[in-house]
Amino acid sequence: MRYEEFTIEGRNAVLEAFRAKKTIDKLFVLDGCQDGPIRSITREARKQDTIINYVSKERLNQLSETGNHQGVIAYAAAYEYAEINDMFRLEEEKGEAPFIFFLDGIEDPHNLGAIIRTANLAGAHGVVIPKRRAVGLTATVAKTSAGALNYTPVAKVTNMANTIEELKEKGMWFVCADMGGETMYKLNLTGPIGLVVGNEGEGVSRLVKEKCDMVASIPMKGDIDSLNASVATGVLAYEIVRQRLSK
Amino acid sequence: MRYEEFTIEGRNAVLEAFRAKKTIDKLFVLDGCQDGPIRSITREARKQDTIINYVSKERLNQLSETGNHQGVIAYAAAYEYAEINDMFRLEEEKGEAPFIFFLDGIEDPHNLGAIIRTANLAGAHGVVIPKRRAVGLTATVAKTSAGALNYTPVAKVTNMANTIEELKEKGMWFVCADMGGETMYKLNLTGPIGLVVGNEGEGVSRLVKEKCDMVASIPMKGDIDSLNASVATGVLAYEIVRQRLSK
Repeated sequence: MRYEEFTIEGRNAVLEAFRAKKTIDKLFVLDGCQDGPIRSITREARKQDTIINYVSKERLNQLSETGNHQGVIAYAAAYEYAEINDMFRLEEEKGEAPFIFFLDGIEDPHNLGAIIRTANLAGAHGVVIPKRRAVGLTATVAKTSAGALNYTPVAKVTNMANTIEELKEKGMWFVCADMGGETMYKLNLTGPIGLVVGNEGEGVSRLVKEKCDMVASIPMKGDIDSLNASVATGVLAYEIVRQRLSK
Repeated sequence: MRYEEFTIEGRNAVLEAFRAKKTIDKLFVLDGCQDGPIRSITREARKQDTIINYVSKERLNQLSETGNHQGVIAYAAAYEYAEINDMFRLEEEKGEAPFIFFLDGIEDPHNLGAIIRTANLAGAHGVVIPKRRAVGLTATVAKTSAGALNYTPVAKVTNMANTIEELKEKGMWFVCADMGGETMYKLNLTGPIGLVVGNEGEGVSRLVKEKCDMVASIPMKGDIDSLNASVATGVLAYEIVRQRLSK
């Protein structure tokens, strides 16, 4: 199985995982624990830019599957992450203008899976997610992506605003989904584009929104606030598809 | 809480629920059990067109929350169902052409919730679901609808093909989502319309598809088969919104 989710427990096992360059999504370490092996582990974690959570013994016991965590538990990625350069390669091979999804903090694995599925079918060249405060490529994400994770590269970045800034210098345009924006039908979304979608509850963060060239809104007629995040992403992505097809 | 899900267990409790005209989604009865009280319950269930599942004692024990099911467990709807006439009333009040979703067998409660949410925001007048082989209005559906269930009526019908036939006689047009169809951008979707979406795995059933006036497909560029059902519904619904707005 390419999609298994790994929980790695115990000092040696976690240290070995880091040394074998396994992609560790999250590390849980017993708060206040400062001995040699733990320090080696956190040093490796920092090198690989893994998020470290210092937690209580009770929390570790809850997370533990083996009951023998020795003060440290790691969540390994069920899938290898790509680099943004892989997406540009994909786009060049296909001879298309770049079309990349930027997800600013999607938390629900079902939403992330459905969005990767949409990215694949809408012809996007990849999906970029942040390292912090977002779900990673877990087994649930892989499953709900319905196989799309095998084809559509997903990259993880430390600072989404900076990444957007860098890609703007390479000629990409960024449109973010937000309620205050111009109706999506009125915007020109045909160029090399990054589609930025926010967190389920809070939308796109201020810092990221400020970097975007356009703010697009989906017309809403109803009584409630917002569409499901994966539905909204699909609706916006297909407006881009429509505009590109009709060009 | 308007959204609580009820599991009703035991002969008297279940019989009372039927007599009080509670909406029972599903009934589980001990296979082979034929005594008087059970026969009264199944008679009531048939009157109200409830699905009856005959199951083993082991299955009932699994489903039981009280441990005292006496051979019968009922799942009560977390929400009251509407009638299709309620939708026409809503549409007349708003002075709009009918726009109704028909879901031919959505099984995942997260999808159903997200679709009801989309129906509300896309300005649809209601959602029609089948009685059999589909998820009903459970607490999960209510939760994932993000409040839309309070505004958008959901009706349950015994035979979707017949319902479509009846509504066609009232002047509605039906478009179903399927891969073999015409690209959605090329169809005229501006009239009084029913949007028919199929089951997650198998799509729209043959009988229902035959009743539809048009088959619409979403352009797909990728490597996998299909979008998530709630995303596909959102993309199609918003193509209808776009066409209505640009009319």
